[in-house]
Amino acid sequence: VTLPAGVHVRIVGTGLIGTSLGLALSRTGAIVSLDDPSTTACALARDLGAGVLAAEVTAAPAVVVVAAPPDAVAAVVVRELAAWPEAVVTDVASVKLAVLEDVSALGGDLQRYVGSHPMAGRERSGAIAAQADLFEGRSWVVAPGPEAGEAATAAVRDLALAVGAAPTRMTPGAHDAAVAAVSHVPQVAASLVAARLRDLPDSAVALAGQGLRDVTRIAASDPMMWTQILAGNAPALRVVLEQLAADLDDVLQAVRQLDDASVASGGGPAGSGPSGTAGRGSRGVLARAVASGNAGHARIPGKHGAAPTAYATVTVLVPDEPGALGRLLHDVGEAGINLEDLHLEHGIGAPVGLAELAVLPAAAEPLTVALLQRGWRVHD
Amino acid sequence: VTLPAGVHVRIVGTGLIGTSLGLALSRTGAIVSLDDPSTTACALARDLGAGVLAAEVTAAPAVVVVAAPPDAVAAVVVRELAAWPEAVVTDVASVKLAVLEDVSALGGDLQRYVGSHPMAGRERSGAIAAQADLFEGRSWVVAPGPEAGEAATAAVRDLALAVGAAPTRMTPGAHDAAVAAVSHVPQVAASLVAARLRDLPDSAVALAGQGLRDVTRIAASDPMMWTQILAGNAPALRVVLEQLAADLDDVLQAVRQLDDASVASGGGPAGSGPSGTAGRGSRGVLARAVASGNAGHARIPGKHGAAPTAYATVTVLVPDEPGALGRLLHDVGEAGINLEDLHLEHGIGAPVGLAELAVLPAAAEPLTVALLQRGWRVHD
Repeated sequence: VTLPAGVHVRIVGTGLIGTSLGLALSRTGAIVSLDDPSTTACALARDLGAGVLAAEVTAAPAVVVVAAPPDAVAAVVVRELAAWPEAVVTDVASVKLAVLEDVSALGGDLQRYVGSHPMAGRERSGAIAAQADLFEGRSWVVAPGPEAGEAATAAVRDLALAVGAAPTRMTPGAHDAAVAAVSHVPQVAASLVAARLRDLPDSAVALAGQGLRDVTRIAASDPMMWTQILAGNAPALRVVLEQLAADLDDVLQAVRQLDDASVASGGGPAGSGPSGTAGRGSRGVLARAVASGNAGHARIPGKHGAAPTAYATVTVLVPDEPGALGRLLHDVGEAGINLEDLHLEHGIGAPVGLAELAVLPAAAEPLTVALLQRGWRVHD
Repeated sequence: VTLPAGVHVRIVGTGLIGTSLGLALSRTGAIVSLDDPSTTACALARDLGAGVLAAEVTAAPAVVVVAAPPDAVAAVVVRELAAWPEAVVTDVASVKLAVLEDVSALGGDLQRYVGSHPMAGRERSGAIAAQADLFEGRSWVVAPGPEAGEAATAAVRDLALAVGAAPTRMTPGAHDAAVAAVSHVPQVAASLVAARLRDLPDSAVALAGQGLRDVTRIAASDPMMWTQILAGNAPALRVVLEQLAADLDDVLQAVRQLDDASVASGGGPAGSGPSGTAGRGSRGVLARAVASGNAGHARIPGKHGAAPTAYATVTVLVPDEPGALGRLLHDVGEAGINLEDLHLEHGIGAPVGLAELAVLPAAAEPLTVALLQRGWRVHD
């Protein structure tokens, strides 16, 4: 899918997303004009190749993309709708219902406004971190309001397709409920877990492992930006946070009961050995919490948004030498089997690695047979 | 540091940790004997090169490492102390005070028992996931009780050093408080965040990004094992969970106030545009929560004690078709470069995937050049 040749896209806001979009669209042959309250930021995006300065273009844009900070988005959208009465206007804010309601309250033309949200980002911000391929292979939610025109919606969808993203249509409310669970609550949890490290002794923090690093990686995010995002999605965030708090309270009650039981019994904590007979119900609460996490985790998509649990895994020993993995995957291809996912495990200096080949369940046995015939060591 | 030449180490429990330890110790020239209630599991560890079957060794061990499931550890430690009256006995359970108290309650020789905890693990369990380098560069807590002998403590320290770990001496209580914050509470948070995904529509889960994947990676952990760990550390876990629940309640109250204010004002949610004047105090709570997370995250140590993550990543676009990944890895092999790790990422409905190739830093640029020359699209 390509945009109409020479289409003029105006980008307002030349941070990470706006500049990346300008870079990507410029590659498609679109005319991209750049605007930003900061002339320095705008000139930087221009110098990086994201487009030309808006002042240098007199033609009206066909599409305006507002990539402003969350708090400013609605006002800028309304201004752009008024300034360009023929243009489709979209924004890329990570909350959609609040922006739509504010655009409506401010009298913006709701037929030409189609909110959207590219699910792409980096830990780094600003034009300097921009990448032309930032959107490639990523979801891009297109969230038209009830009054949005179909042609306007299609224009935003085509914009997403043009930069290699996978557009997904959702209502603004469904979008906000989704990001509350998959983005905003994880951010809150990461921040709160990381906050517990502030007052630990150095010797305790020194025990941090990969699990803690993973859980808290996004705790390094910008407080100003996240305050705007979390506040902007308060209605949907509230629902998921209340469920999270209730689940946490269940776990906490169970842990309290196990602690109290161990003190009452005069033995060690209830978790180990002979004193571990107390609190079976409490242990059930803990087991269910972790098992529910298993079930939720299993739903996170692998390839093509499908549940990764639908795949079978074939594990193969791979000699740790150049080309060995290539030979393995060549043999997989020769067997006519498509890999759904692949993960390589090996240690430093280990003479072999383990390649985990995820395939459709029906392909697991033929693949195993084919690889064994070709001399590979295959494990279940 | 090396163990005495030909020292005999007995490992009881041939799961991930026991087998990895056997692999690592065997490389140092130690005699490793393996025991496990499951003869199949034990034979697998032997076949992988972790040591010899215990039945084949008649000499008494100098050191016994109990790598049994948490609930069984104390009883096995006491049995081993009695069976080998000259041996130092350690365990590798992730909770230390409960084990010590149970060993004491069961009448074990507290002078020869020195609990320990290697801060190493994987999402996968069992001998098949074992790695000889699992402990390299990792912390290994040595947590002697008040009655433990110095020679016994030194023997456990030397064992940790021999397999490349960094021994850290802590009291059992200090250890348990530390792991509550850096390991057990992150596990609870990851599980609870992942559990919120169970009942989401597919379209919502499809928006999952890297942030969610990171936060919830350890939510795939084994419920049985984690129930034992969390229950075993109830006293220390309770303290940190209560703080976490209080922090979460603050955030929830702020989000409720922002939601209520936006409903009362009749405008959109309070997060954006002109209706965003309500709830400055609530926004302050959110900003402080994220900023506290920044401060806690900044305390996590970098490279030292971290997973060996000093790799550079080269990201390559791979067409979603049979054999494409094989061609890529063939080309990597042709370039004479050894992959350290590989991860594949696909978006929903995207015609391409992203292969993330991890290589030694010095190999990143040559690899990029070689792949570009062969026609691959390479990202930084």
